[in-house]
Amino acid sequence: MTAPAWIHEQFEPTGSAIGYRIVRKLDEVQSEFQKIEIYETTDWGNLMLIDGAVMLTARDNFLYHEMMAHPALFTHPDPKQVAIIGGGDCGTLREVLRHRGVDRAVQCDIDEQVTRMAEKYFPELCESNGDPRAELLFDDGVAYMRDAAPASLDVVIVDSTDPVGPAEGLFNRAFYESCFRALRDDGILVQQSESPLALLDLIRQMRAEMGKAGFTAFRTLPFPQPCYPTGWWSCTLARKRGGFAFREGDADGKDFETRYYSAGIHRGALTLPPFVAAALDA
Amino acid sequence: MTAPAWIHEQFEPTGSAIGYRIVRKLDEVQSEFQKIEIYETTDWGNLMLIDGAVMLTARDNFLYHEMMAHPALFTHPDPKQVAIIGGGDCGTLREVLRHRGVDRAVQCDIDEQVTRMAEKYFPELCESNGDPRAELLFDDGVAYMRDAAPASLDVVIVDSTDPVGPAEGLFNRAFYESCFRALRDDGILVQQSESPLALLDLIRQMRAEMGKAGFTAFRTLPFPQPCYPTGWWSCTLARKRGGFAFREGDADGKDFETRYYSAGIHRGALTLPPFVAAALDA
Repeated sequence: MTAPAWIHEQFEPTGSAIGYRIVRKLDEVQSEFQKIEIYETTDWGNLMLIDGAVMLTARDNFLYHEMMAHPALFTHPDPKQVAIIGGGDCGTLREVLRHRGVDRAVQCDIDEQVTRMAEKYFPELCESNGDPRAELLFDDGVAYMRDAAPASLDVVIVDSTDPVGPAEGLFNRAFYESCFRALRDDGILVQQSESPLALLDLIRQMRAEMGKAGFTAFRTLPFPQPCYPTGWWSCTLARKRGGFAFREGDADGKDFETRYYSAGIHRGALTLPPFVAAALDA
Repeated sequence: MTAPAWIHEQFEPTGSAIGYRIVRKLDEVQSEFQKIEIYETTDWGNLMLIDGAVMLTARDNFLYHEMMAHPALFTHPDPKQVAIIGGGDCGTLREVLRHRGVDRAVQCDIDEQVTRMAEKYFPELCESNGDPRAELLFDDGVAYMRDAAPASLDVVIVDSTDPVGPAEGLFNRAFYESCFRALRDDGILVQQSESPLALLDLIRQMRAEMGKAGFTAFRTLPFPQPCYPTGWWSCTLARKRGGFAFREGDADGKDFETRYYSAGIHRGALTLPPFVAAALDA
Protein backbone atom coordinates (compact mmCIF):
# COMPACT_ATOMS: atom_id res chain seq x y z
CA MET A 1 0.00 0.00 0.00
CA THR A 2 1.33 3.41 -0.91
CA ALA A 3 0.21 6.46 1.04
CA PRO A 4 -2.73 8.22 -0.57
CA ALA A 5 -1.78 11.14 -2.79
CA TRP A 6 -3.15 14.63 -2.48
CA ILE A 7 -3.41 17.28 -5.15
CA HIS A 8 -3.77 20.97 -4.39
CA GLU A 9 -4.87 23.97 -6.39
CA GLN A 10 -2.90 26.90 -5.09
CA PHE A 11 -4.94 29.92 -6.13
CA GLU A 12 -2.61 32.90 -6.37
CA PRO A 13 -5.21 35.73 -6.27
CA THR A 14 -6.55 34.61 -2.87
CA GLY A 15 -3.36 33.12 -1.43
CA SER A 16 -5.35 30.04 -0.48
CA ALA A 17 -5.56 26.48 -1.70
CA ILE A 18 -8.06 23.66 -2.01
CA GLY A 19 -6.97 20.03 -2.18
CA TYR A 20 -8.28 16.52 -2.56
CA ARG A 21 -7.13 13.06 -1.63
CA ILE A 22 -6.97 11.16 -4.86
CA VAL A 23 -7.09 7.52 -5.84
CA ARG A 24 -5.64 7.95 -9.31
CA LYS A 25 -5.49 10.04 -12.42
CA LEU A 26 -8.06 8.91 -14.94
CA ASP A 27 -7.34 11.03 -17.97
CA GLU A 28 -5.61 14.06 -19.38
CA VAL A 29 -6.04 15.90 -22.65
CA GLN A 30 -4.42 19.02 -23.99
CA SER A 31 -7.08 20.66 -26.10
CA GLU A 32 -6.57 23.56 -28.46
CA PHE A 33 -7.35 25.88 -25.54
CA GLN A 34 -6.37 24.31 -22.26
CA LYS A 35 -5.23 21.24 -20.36
CA ILE A 36 -8.06 19.12 -18.95
CA GLU A 37 -7.31 16.52 -16.27
CA ILE A 38 -9.62 14.03 -14.59
CA TYR A 39 -8.88 12.42 -11.23
CA GLU A 40 -10.72 9.91 -9.13
CA THR A 41 -10.87 11.15 -5.53
CA THR A 42 -11.48 9.16 -2.36
CA ASP A 43 -14.44 11.24 -1.15
CA TRP A 44 -15.61 13.60 -3.89
CA GLY A 45 -16.10 11.32 -6.86
CA ASN A 46 -14.48 12.36 -10.11
CA LEU A 47 -12.72 15.69 -10.27
CA MET A 48 -12.01 17.87 -13.32
CA LEU A 49 -9.13 20.33 -13.45
CA ILE A 50 -8.61 22.84 -16.25
CA ASP A 51 -5.11 24.29 -16.42
CA GLY A 52 -4.66 23.15 -12.83
CA ALA A 53 -7.80 24.88 -11.53
CA VAL A 54 -10.56 22.79 -9.97
CA MET A 55 -13.65 22.97 -12.20
CA LEU A 56 -15.96 20.52 -10.49
CA THR A 57 -16.30 17.39 -8.43
CA ALA A 58 -19.09 14.86 -8.82
CA ARG A 59 -20.12 15.40 -5.20
CA ASP A 60 -20.55 19.14 -4.88
CA ASN A 61 -21.20 20.55 -8.37
CA PHE A 62 -24.95 20.59 -7.70
CA LEU A 63 -24.50 23.68 -5.55
CA TYR A 64 -23.04 25.71 -8.39
CA HIS A 65 -25.20 24.37 -11.21
CA GLU A 66 -28.45 24.84 -9.33
CA MET A 67 -27.54 28.39 -8.34
CA MET A 68 -26.42 29.33 -11.85
CA ALA A 69 -29.77 28.26 -13.28
CA HIS A 70 -32.73 28.48 -10.92
CA PRO A 71 -32.53 31.97 -9.36
CA ALA A 72 -32.40 33.52 -12.85
CA LEU A 73 -35.06 31.27 -14.31
CA PHE A 74 -37.45 31.80 -11.40
CA THR A 75 -36.84 35.56 -11.52
CA HIS A 76 -37.71 35.85 -15.22
CA PRO A 77 -41.52 35.86 -15.66
CA ASP A 78 -41.54 33.25 -18.44
CA PRO A 79 -38.13 32.14 -19.71
CA LYS A 80 -38.30 30.40 -23.08
CA GLN A 81 -35.04 31.14 -24.90
CA VAL A 82 -31.86 30.54 -22.91
CA ALA A 83 -28.20 30.80 -23.90
CA ILE A 84 -25.37 29.35 -21.82
CA ILE A 85 -21.93 30.73 -22.60
CA GLY A 86 -19.30 28.28 -21.44
CA GLY A 87 -20.85 25.55 -19.31
CA GLY A 88 -19.17 22.79 -21.29
CA ASP A 89 -19.65 20.24 -18.51
CA CYS A 90 -23.39 20.47 -19.32
CA GLY A 91 -24.50 20.67 -15.67
CA THR A 92 -26.06 24.11 -16.03
CA LEU A 93 -27.81 23.01 -19.22
CA ARG A 94 -29.35 20.09 -17.34
CA GLU A 95 -30.72 22.42 -14.65
CA VAL A 96 -32.09 24.88 -17.23
CA LEU A 97 -33.95 22.11 -19.03
CA ARG A 98 -35.72 21.09 -15.82
CA HIS A 99 -37.90 24.15 -16.50
CA ARG A 100 -40.63 22.83 -18.80
CA GLY A 101 -41.41 26.32 -20.10
CA VAL A 102 -37.99 26.59 -21.71
CA ASP A 103 -38.32 26.07 -25.48
CA ARG A 104 -34.64 26.15 -26.38
CA ALA A 105 -31.33 26.20 -24.53
CA VAL A 106 -28.15 26.78 -26.50
CA GLN A 107 -24.86 25.94 -24.83
CA CYS A 108 -21.87 27.58 -26.49
CA ASP A 109 -18.52 26.47 -25.10
CA ILE A 110 -15.32 27.15 -26.97
CA ASP A 111 -13.80 23.81 -26.05
CA GLU A 112 -15.49 20.64 -27.23
CA GLN A 113 -13.06 18.56 -25.21
CA VAL A 114 -14.64 19.75 -21.95
CA THR A 115 -17.95 18.27 -23.04
CA ARG A 116 -16.33 15.06 -24.27
CA MET A 117 -14.66 14.61 -20.90
CA ALA A 118 -17.90 15.40 -19.07
CA GLU A 119 -19.78 12.80 -21.13
CA LYS A 120 -17.22 10.21 -20.12
CA TYR A 121 -16.52 11.09 -16.49
CA PHE A 122 -19.61 13.03 -15.36
CA PRO A 123 -22.36 11.33 -17.40
CA GLU A 124 -25.03 12.43 -14.90
CA LEU A 125 -24.41 16.06 -15.90
CA CYS A 126 -24.96 15.22 -19.57
CA GLU A 127 -28.21 13.34 -19.20
CA SER A 128 -30.21 16.15 -20.85
CA ASN A 129 -27.84 16.65 -23.78
CA GLY A 130 -30.20 14.63 -25.99
CA ASP A 131 -33.22 16.77 -25.06
CA PRO A 132 -34.68 18.12 -28.32
CA ARG A 133 -34.67 21.61 -26.76
CA ALA A 134 -30.89 21.48 -26.23
CA GLU A 135 -28.36 22.69 -28.77
CA LEU A 136 -24.65 22.22 -28.12
CA LEU A 137 -22.28 24.50 -29.98
CA PHE A 138 -18.51 24.50 -29.73
CA ASP A 139 -17.60 28.00 -30.66
CA ASP A 140 -16.45 31.36 -29.35
CA GLY A 141 -19.04 32.67 -26.89
CA VAL A 142 -18.03 36.28 -27.50
CA ALA A 143 -18.77 35.92 -31.23
CA TYR A 144 -21.94 33.96 -30.52
CA MET A 145 -23.40 36.74 -28.40
CA ARG A 146 -22.20 39.43 -30.81
CA ASP A 147 -24.04 37.71 -33.64
CA ALA A 148 -27.18 36.78 -31.70
CA ALA A 149 -30.40 38.33 -33.03
CA PRO A 150 -31.44 41.42 -31.06
CA ALA A 151 -34.13 40.82 -28.42
CA SER A 152 -34.07 37.09 -29.03
CA LEU A 153 -33.16 35.75 -25.59
CA ASP A 154 -34.79 35.65 -22.16
CA VAL A 155 -31.84 34.50 -20.07
CA VAL A 156 -28.10 34.49 -20.77
CA ILE A 157 -26.01 32.41 -18.36
CA VAL A 158 -22.27 33.00 -18.38
CA ASP A 159 -20.84 29.81 -16.89
CA SER A 160 -17.15 30.35 -17.47
CA THR A 161 -13.76 29.81 -15.95
CA ASP A 162 -11.94 32.63 -14.17
CA PRO A 163 -11.39 35.90 -16.06
CA VAL A 164 -7.99 34.89 -17.37
CA GLY A 165 -7.17 32.82 -20.46
CA PRO A 166 -10.04 31.71 -22.71
CA ALA A 167 -12.71 33.36 -20.51
CA GLU A 168 -11.13 36.81 -20.29
CA GLY A 169 -13.40 38.26 -22.99
CA LEU A 170 -16.51 37.34 -21.01
CA PHE A 171 -15.95 39.92 -18.28
CA ASN A 172 -15.96 43.26 -20.12
CA ARG A 173 -18.27 45.94 -21.45
CA ALA A 174 -18.16 44.84 -25.09
CA PHE A 175 -19.38 41.35 -24.20
CA TYR A 176 -22.04 42.69 -21.86
CA GLU A 177 -23.25 45.04 -24.64
CA SER A 178 -23.77 42.00 -26.84
CA CYS A 179 -25.73 40.33 -24.06
CA PHE A 180 -27.78 43.48 -23.49
CA ARG A 181 -28.70 43.68 -27.19
CA ALA A 182 -29.57 39.99 -27.46
CA LEU A 183 -31.81 40.02 -24.38
CA ARG A 184 -35.45 41.04 -24.49
CA ASP A 185 -36.47 43.92 -22.26
CA ASP A 186 -37.37 41.66 -19.35
CA GLY A 187 -34.29 39.52 -19.91
CA ILE A 188 -31.74 38.52 -17.32
CA LEU A 189 -28.00 38.08 -17.53
CA VAL A 190 -26.41 35.84 -14.91
CA GLN A 191 -22.71 35.22 -14.50
CA GLN A 192 -20.57 33.27 -12.07
CA SER A 193 -18.88 35.98 -10.04
CA GLU A 194 -16.16 34.37 -7.95
CA SER A 195 -15.70 34.57 -4.17
CA PRO A 196 -17.75 37.16 -2.25
CA LEU A 197 -15.13 37.08 0.48
CA ALA A 198 -11.85 37.30 -1.37
CA LEU A 199 -12.72 38.72 -4.78
CA LEU A 200 -15.13 41.54 -4.06
CA ASP A 201 -13.19 43.92 -6.28
CA LEU A 202 -13.82 41.65 -9.22
CA ILE A 203 -17.57 41.54 -8.51
CA ARG A 204 -17.64 45.31 -8.23
CA GLN A 205 -15.79 45.66 -11.56
CA MET A 206 -18.16 43.19 -13.26
CA ARG A 207 -21.17 45.12 -12.07
CA ALA A 208 -19.62 48.39 -13.23
CA GLU A 209 -18.95 46.98 -16.70
CA MET A 210 -22.48 45.58 -16.86
CA GLY A 211 -23.78 49.02 -15.94
CA LYS A 212 -21.78 50.66 -18.74
CA ALA A 213 -23.42 48.20 -21.13
CA GLY A 214 -26.86 49.40 -20.09
CA PHE A 215 -27.97 47.03 -17.35
CA THR A 216 -29.76 48.93 -14.60
CA ALA A 217 -30.08 46.52 -11.68
CA PHE A 218 -27.74 43.97 -10.16
CA ARG A 219 -27.94 41.34 -7.49
CA THR A 220 -25.12 39.10 -6.27
CA LEU A 221 -26.22 35.84 -4.65
CA PRO A 222 -23.66 33.97 -2.50
CA PHE A 223 -23.66 30.21 -2.07
CA PRO A 224 -21.32 27.55 -0.71
CA GLN A 225 -19.06 25.82 -3.23
CA PRO A 226 -16.34 23.80 -1.51
CA CYS A 227 -14.33 23.09 -4.66
CA TYR A 228 -13.71 26.77 -5.47
CA PRO A 229 -11.27 29.09 -3.70
CA THR A 230 -12.52 30.04 -0.19
CA GLY A 231 -15.39 27.56 -0.53
CA TRP A 232 -17.83 30.44 -0.93
CA TRP A 233 -18.93 31.56 -4.35
CA SER A 234 -21.50 33.74 -6.05
CA CYS A 235 -23.51 34.45 -9.15
CA THR A 236 -24.45 37.96 -10.22
CA LEU A 237 -27.75 38.72 -11.94
CA ALA A 238 -28.25 41.82 -14.07
CA ARG A 239 -31.46 43.15 -15.57
CA LYS A 240 -32.24 45.68 -18.28
CA ARG A 241 -35.17 46.85 -16.20
CA GLY A 242 -37.16 45.62 -13.23
CA GLY A 243 -36.01 44.08 -10.00
CA PHE A 244 -35.30 40.74 -8.42
CA ALA A 245 -38.59 39.68 -6.89
CA PHE A 246 -38.96 36.10 -8.04
CA ARG A 247 -41.79 33.67 -8.72
CA GLU A 248 -41.78 32.27 -5.19
CA GLY A 249 -44.93 30.25 -5.66
CA ASP A 250 -43.53 28.58 -8.77
CA ALA A 251 -40.23 27.91 -7.03
CA ASP A 252 -42.05 26.40 -4.05
CA GLY A 253 -44.26 24.25 -6.26
CA LYS A 254 -41.73 23.28 -8.91
CA ASP A 255 -42.17 19.84 -10.47
CA PHE A 256 -38.51 18.85 -10.25
CA GLU A 257 -36.15 18.15 -7.39
CA THR A 258 -33.20 20.22 -6.34
CA ARG A 259 -30.72 19.49 -3.60
CA TYR A 260 -29.56 23.00 -2.68
CA TYR A 261 -31.95 25.41 -4.35
CA SER A 262 -35.34 26.16 -2.85
CA ALA A 263 -37.56 29.21 -2.64
CA GLY A 264 -36.28 29.71 0.91
CA ILE A 265 -32.63 29.45 -0.12
CA HIS A 266 -33.30 31.87 -2.99
CA ARG A 267 -34.92 34.35 -0.58
CA GLY A 268 -32.00 34.00 1.82
CA ALA A 269 -29.41 34.51 -0.92
CA LEU A 270 -31.00 37.86 -1.81
CA THR A 271 -29.89 39.20 1.58
CA LEU A 272 -26.19 39.97 1.52
CA PRO A 273 -24.04 39.96 4.66
CA PRO A 274 -23.32 43.55 5.73
CA PHE A 275 -19.66 43.48 4.71
CA VAL A 276 -20.49 42.29 1.19
CA ALA A 277 -23.32 44.79 0.79
CA ALA A 278 -21.05 47.60 1.95
CA ALA A 279 -18.27 46.62 -0.45
CA LEU A 280 -20.61 46.35 -3.45
CA ASP A 281 -22.35 49.63 -2.69
CA ALA A 282 -19.06 51.48 -2.28
CA MET B 1 13.88 35.56 -3.47
CA THR B 2 12.70 32.11 -2.56
CA ALA B 3 9.37 30.87 -3.84
CA PRO B 4 6.55 31.48 -1.38
CA ALA B 5 5.74 28.51 0.82
CA TRP B 6 2.33 26.95 1.18
CA ILE B 7 0.98 24.95 4.08
CA HIS B 8 -1.95 22.59 3.80
CA GLU B 9 -4.26 20.97 6.27
CA GLN B 10 -5.22 17.62 4.84
CA PHE B 11 -8.42 16.73 6.62
CA GLU B 12 -8.80 12.97 6.58
CA PRO B 13 -12.54 12.69 7.38
CA THR B 14 -13.52 14.74 4.32
CA GLY B 15 -10.66 13.78 2.01
CA SER B 16 -10.17 17.47 1.27
CA ALA B 17 -7.59 20.08 2.16
CA ILE B 18 -7.33 23.81 2.79
CA GLY B 19 -4.07 25.66 2.33
CA TYR B 20 -2.48 29.08 2.67
CA ARG B 21 0.45 30.89 1.16
CA ILE B 22 2.65 31.86 4.06
CA VAL B 23 5.27 34.49 4.68
CA ARG B 24 6.83 32.84 7.72
CA LYS B 25 6.26 30.90 10.89
CA LEU B 26 5.87 33.24 13.84
CA ASP B 27 5.65 30.92 16.80
CA GLU B 28 5.12 27.40 18.04
CA VAL B 29 4.34 26.05 21.47
CA GLN B 30 3.67 22.54 22.67
CA SER B 31 1.21 22.96 25.51
CA GLU B 32 0.17 20.28 27.95
CA PHE B 33 -2.67 19.41 25.55
CA GLN B 34 -1.70 20.23 21.99
CA LYS B 35 0.73 21.85 19.59
CA ILE B 36 -0.13 25.45 18.70
CA GLU B 37 1.50 27.09 15.68
CA ILE B 38 1.21 30.63 14.37
CA TYR B 39 2.00 31.61 10.79
CA GLU B 40 1.94 34.90 8.96
CA THR B 41 0.12 34.45 5.65
CA THR B 42 0.29 36.61 2.55
CA ASP B 43 -3.46 37.24 2.28
CA TRP B 44 -5.22 36.06 5.45
CA GLY B 45 -3.29 37.76 8.21
CA ASN B 46 -2.09 35.60 11.05
CA LEU B 47 -3.10 31.95 11.12
CA MET B 48 -3.38 29.59 14.10
CA LEU B 49 -3.03 25.83 13.76
CA ILE B 50 -3.71 23.38 16.59
CA ASP B 51 -2.25 19.93 16.05
CA GLY B 52 -2.00 20.80 12.36
CA ALA B 53 -5.67 21.81 12.03
CA VAL B 54 -6.52 25.37 11.01
CA MET B 55 -8.26 27.13 13.89
CA LEU B 56 -8.59 30.64 12.58
CA THR B 57 -7.19 33.34 10.37
CA ALA B 58 -7.28 37.04 11.16
CA ARG B 59 -9.24 37.70 7.98
CA ASP B 60 -12.17 35.32 8.14
CA ASN B 61 -12.74 34.40 11.81
CA PHE B 62 -15.52 36.99 12.07
CA LEU B 63 -17.83 34.65 10.18
CA TYR B 64 -17.52 31.91 12.77
CA HIS B 65 -17.41 34.07 15.88
CA GLU B 66 -20.43 36.14 14.90
CA MET B 67 -22.46 33.04 14.07
CA MET B 68 -21.48 31.25 17.29
CA ALA B 69 -22.72 34.18 19.38
CA HIS B 70 -25.48 36.26 17.83
CA PRO B 71 -28.09 33.75 16.62
CA ALA B 72 -28.22 32.18 20.10
CA LEU B 73 -28.17 35.49 21.95
CA PHE B 74 -30.88 37.03 19.77
CA THR B 75 -33.00 33.88 20.10
CA HIS B 76 -32.91 33.89 23.90
CA PRO B 77 -35.43 36.44 25.25
CA ASP B 78 -32.99 38.08 27.68
CA PRO B 79 -29.57 36.43 27.98
CA LYS B 80 -27.69 37.49 31.11
CA GLN B 81 -25.51 34.55 32.13
CA VAL B 82 -23.38 32.99 29.39
CA ALA B 83 -20.79 30.23 29.50
CA ILE B 84 -18.36 29.55 26.66
CA ILE B 85 -16.74 26.14 26.71
CA GLY B 86 -13.53 26.22 24.71
CA GLY B 87 -13.26 29.46 22.77
CA GLY B 88 -9.73 30.13 24.01
CA ASP B 89 -9.00 32.58 21.18
CA CYS B 90 -11.54 34.89 22.89
CA GLY B 91 -13.32 35.85 19.66
CA THR B 92 -16.66 34.39 20.73
CA LEU B 93 -16.34 36.07 24.12
CA ARG B 94 -15.87 39.42 22.39
CA GLU B 95 -19.06 38.92 20.35
CA VAL B 96 -21.05 37.82 23.41
CA LEU B 97 -20.01 40.93 25.34
CA ARG B 98 -21.32 43.18 22.58
CA HIS B 99 -24.74 42.39 24.04
CA ARG B 100 -25.19 44.97 26.80
CA GLY B 101 -27.78 42.86 28.57
CA VAL B 102 -25.22 40.17 29.33
CA ASP B 103 -24.18 40.39 33.00
CA ARG B 104 -21.47 37.74 32.98
CA ALA B 105 -19.67 35.63 30.42
CA VAL B 106 -17.39 32.85 31.60
CA GLN B 107 -14.96 31.39 29.10
CA CYS B 108 -13.60 28.00 30.15
CA ASP B 109 -10.87 26.65 27.89
CA ILE B 110 -8.69 23.79 29.00
CA ASP B 111 -5.57 25.26 27.40
CA GLU B 112 -4.28 28.60 28.66
CA GLN B 113 -1.68 28.65 25.89
CA VAL B 114 -4.38 29.18 23.26
CA THR B 115 -5.39 32.41 24.96
CA ARG B 116 -1.78 33.52 25.45
CA MET B 117 -1.14 33.02 21.74
CA ALA B 118 -4.36 34.84 20.83
CA GLU B 119 -3.38 37.80 23.03
CA LYS B 120 -0.10 38.04 21.18
CA TYR B 121 -1.09 37.27 17.58
CA PHE B 122 -4.82 38.09 17.45
CA PRO B 123 -5.07 41.00 19.91
CA GLU B 124 -8.26 42.27 18.25
CA LEU B 125 -10.05 39.11 19.43
CA CYS B 126 -8.97 39.74 23.00
CA GLU B 127 -10.05 43.35 23.26
CA SER B 128 -12.93 42.53 25.61
CA ASN B 129 -10.92 40.26 27.92
CA GLY B 130 -10.66 43.11 30.41
CA ASP B 131 -14.41 43.71 30.45
CA PRO B 132 -15.55 43.41 34.09
CA ARG B 133 -18.30 41.04 32.92
CA ALA B 134 -15.74 38.59 31.49
CA GLU B 135 -14.20 35.75 33.44
CA LEU B 136 -11.47 33.63 31.88
CA LEU B 137 -10.94 30.16 33.32
CA PHE B 138 -8.40 27.63 32.19
CA ASP B 139 -9.94 24.38 33.18
CA ASP B 140 -11.76 21.28 31.97
CA GLY B 141 -15.03 22.34 30.35
CA VAL B 142 -16.64 18.98 31.05
CA ALA B 143 -16.02 19.38 34.79
CA TYR B 144 -17.02 23.04 34.68
CA MET B 145 -20.45 22.22 33.27
CA ARG B 146 -20.86 19.21 35.56
CA ASP B 147 -20.27 21.44 38.57
CA ALA B 148 -22.29 24.44 37.36
CA ALA B 149 -25.24 25.40 39.57
CA PRO B 150 -28.54 24.06 38.23
CA ALA B 151 -30.63 26.57 36.27
CA SER B 152 -27.88 29.18 36.48
CA LEU B 153 -27.18 29.85 32.81
CA ASP B 154 -29.07 31.38 29.89
CA VAL B 155 -26.76 30.39 27.04
CA VAL B 156 -23.99 27.79 26.81
CA ILE B 157 -21.72 28.11 23.76
CA VAL B 158 -19.52 25.13 22.94
CA ASP B 159 -16.74 26.59 20.84
CA SER B 160 -14.42 23.65 20.57
CA THR B 161 -12.06 21.87 18.21
CA ASP B 162 -13.17 18.75 16.35
CA PRO B 163 -14.57 15.83 18.37
CA VAL B 164 -11.22 14.12 18.73
CA GLY B 165 -8.50 14.75 21.29
CA PRO B 166 -9.18 17.29 24.05
CA ALA B 167 -12.67 18.13 22.74
CA GLU B 168 -13.99 14.58 22.48
CA GLY B 169 -15.88 14.81 25.78
CA LEU B 170 -17.88 17.81 24.51
CA PHE B 171 -19.92 15.81 22.02
CA ASN B 172 -21.74 13.21 24.12
CA ARG B 173 -24.85 12.72 26.21
CA ALA B 174 -23.14 13.09 29.59
CA PHE B 175 -21.82 16.53 28.70
CA TYR B 176 -25.14 17.60 27.21
CA GLU B 177 -26.90 16.47 30.40
CA SER B 178 -24.66 18.80 32.37
CA CYS B 179 -25.55 21.63 29.99
CA PHE B 180 -29.24 20.80 30.25
CA ARG B 181 -29.11 20.92 34.05
CA ALA B 182 -27.14 24.15 34.16
CA LEU B 183 -29.44 25.96 31.74
CA ARG B 184 -32.62 27.70 32.81
CA ASP B 185 -35.85 26.53 31.19
CA ASP B 186 -35.62 29.05 28.38
CA GLY B 187 -31.90 28.44 27.97
CA ILE B 188 -30.09 27.68 24.75
CA LEU B 189 -27.15 25.43 24.01
CA VAL B 190 -25.16 26.23 20.87
CA GLN B 191 -22.29 24.20 19.54
CA GLN B 192 -20.07 24.40 16.47
CA SER B 193 -21.24 21.48 14.36
CA GLU B 194 -18.77 21.00 11.52
CA SER B 195 -19.51 20.89 7.78
CA PRO B 196 -23.14 20.59 6.69
CA LEU B 197 -21.94 19.12 3.41
CA ALA B 198 -19.38 16.56 4.43
CA LEU B 199 -20.13 15.80 8.06
CA LEU B 200 -23.90 15.46 8.22
CA ASP B 201 -23.64 12.19 10.15
CA LEU B 202 -21.82 13.99 12.92
CA ILE B 203 -24.49 16.69 13.11
CA ARG B 204 -27.18 14.03 13.24
CA GLN B 205 -25.34 12.20 16.04
CA MET B 206 -24.89 15.42 18.01
CA ARG B 207 -28.57 16.19 17.78
CA ALA B 208 -29.45 12.65 18.84
CA GLU B 209 -27.17 12.89 21.90
CA MET B 210 -28.62 16.30 22.76
CA GLY B 211 -32.08 14.77 22.52
CA LYS B 212 -31.15 11.95 24.90
CA ALA B 213 -30.02 14.61 27.36
CA GLY B 214 -33.48 16.20 27.30
CA PHE B 215 -33.27 18.94 24.70
CA THR B 216 -36.47 19.04 22.66
CA ALA B 217 -35.77 21.29 19.68
CA PHE B 218 -32.77 21.71 17.39
CA ARG B 219 -31.78 24.01 14.61
CA THR B 220 -28.60 23.83 12.53
CA LEU B 221 -27.52 27.10 10.91
CA PRO B 222 -25.00 26.92 8.05
CA PHE B 223 -22.55 29.69 7.27
CA PRO B 224 -19.44 30.16 5.12
CA GLN B 225 -16.10 29.61 6.84
CA PRO B 226 -13.26 29.40 4.33
CA CYS B 227 -10.62 28.24 6.81
CA TYR B 228 -12.49 25.05 7.80
CA PRO B 229 -12.84 21.88 5.72
CA THR B 230 -15.19 22.39 2.74
CA GLY B 231 -15.39 26.14 3.53
CA TRP B 232 -18.95 25.65 4.75
CA TRP B 233 -19.63 25.26 8.44
CA SER B 234 -22.50 25.27 10.92
CA CYS B 235 -23.61 25.82 14.46
CA THR B 236 -26.39 23.82 16.07
CA LEU B 237 -28.77 25.35 18.60
CA ALA B 238 -30.71 23.23 21.09
CA ARG B 239 -33.49 24.31 23.43
CA LYS B 240 -35.09 22.75 26.50
CA ARG B 241 -38.42 24.10 25.32
CA GLY B 242 -39.65 26.63 22.80
CA GLY B 243 -38.59 27.27 19.24
CA PHE B 244 -36.23 29.38 17.22
CA ALA B 245 -38.14 32.53 16.45
CA PHE B 246 -35.68 35.29 17.29
CA ARG B 247 -35.81 38.90 18.40
CA GLU B 248 -35.71 40.25 14.85
CA GLY B 249 -36.38 43.82 15.87
CA ASP B 250 -33.54 43.77 18.38
CA ALA B 251 -31.21 42.17 15.83
CA ASP B 252 -32.17 44.80 13.25
CA GLY B 253 -31.69 47.64 15.71
CA LYS B 254 -28.63 46.34 17.56
CA ASP B 255 -26.23 49.00 18.83
CA PHE B 256 -23.06 47.25 17.64
CA GLU B 257 -21.65 46.42 14.23
CA THR B 258 -21.27 43.01 12.71
CA ARG B 259 -19.73 42.11 9.39
CA TYR B 260 -21.54 38.87 8.55
CA TYR B 261 -24.44 38.59 10.99
CA SER B 262 -27.66 40.51 10.44
CA ALA B 263 -31.32 39.82 11.07
CA GLY B 264 -31.63 38.94 7.39
CA ILE B 265 -28.68 36.53 7.47
CA HIS B 266 -30.10 34.95 10.64
CA ARG B 267 -33.50 34.50 8.95
CA GLY B 268 -31.82 33.00 5.89
CA ALA B 269 -29.72 30.60 7.96
CA LEU B 270 -32.88 29.17 9.53
CA THR B 271 -33.85 27.76 6.11
CA LEU B 272 -31.82 24.67 5.35
CA PRO B 273 -31.07 23.54 1.81
CA PRO B 274 -33.28 20.55 0.95
CA PHE B 275 -30.46 18.01 1.03
CA VAL B 276 -29.37 19.08 4.53
CA ALA B 277 -32.93 19.17 5.84
CA ALA B 278 -33.57 15.69 4.45
CA ALA B 279 -30.40 14.28 6.01
CA LEU B 280 -31.11 15.77 9.44
CA ASP B 281 -34.74 14.66 9.44
CA ALA B 282 -33.80 11.13 8.43
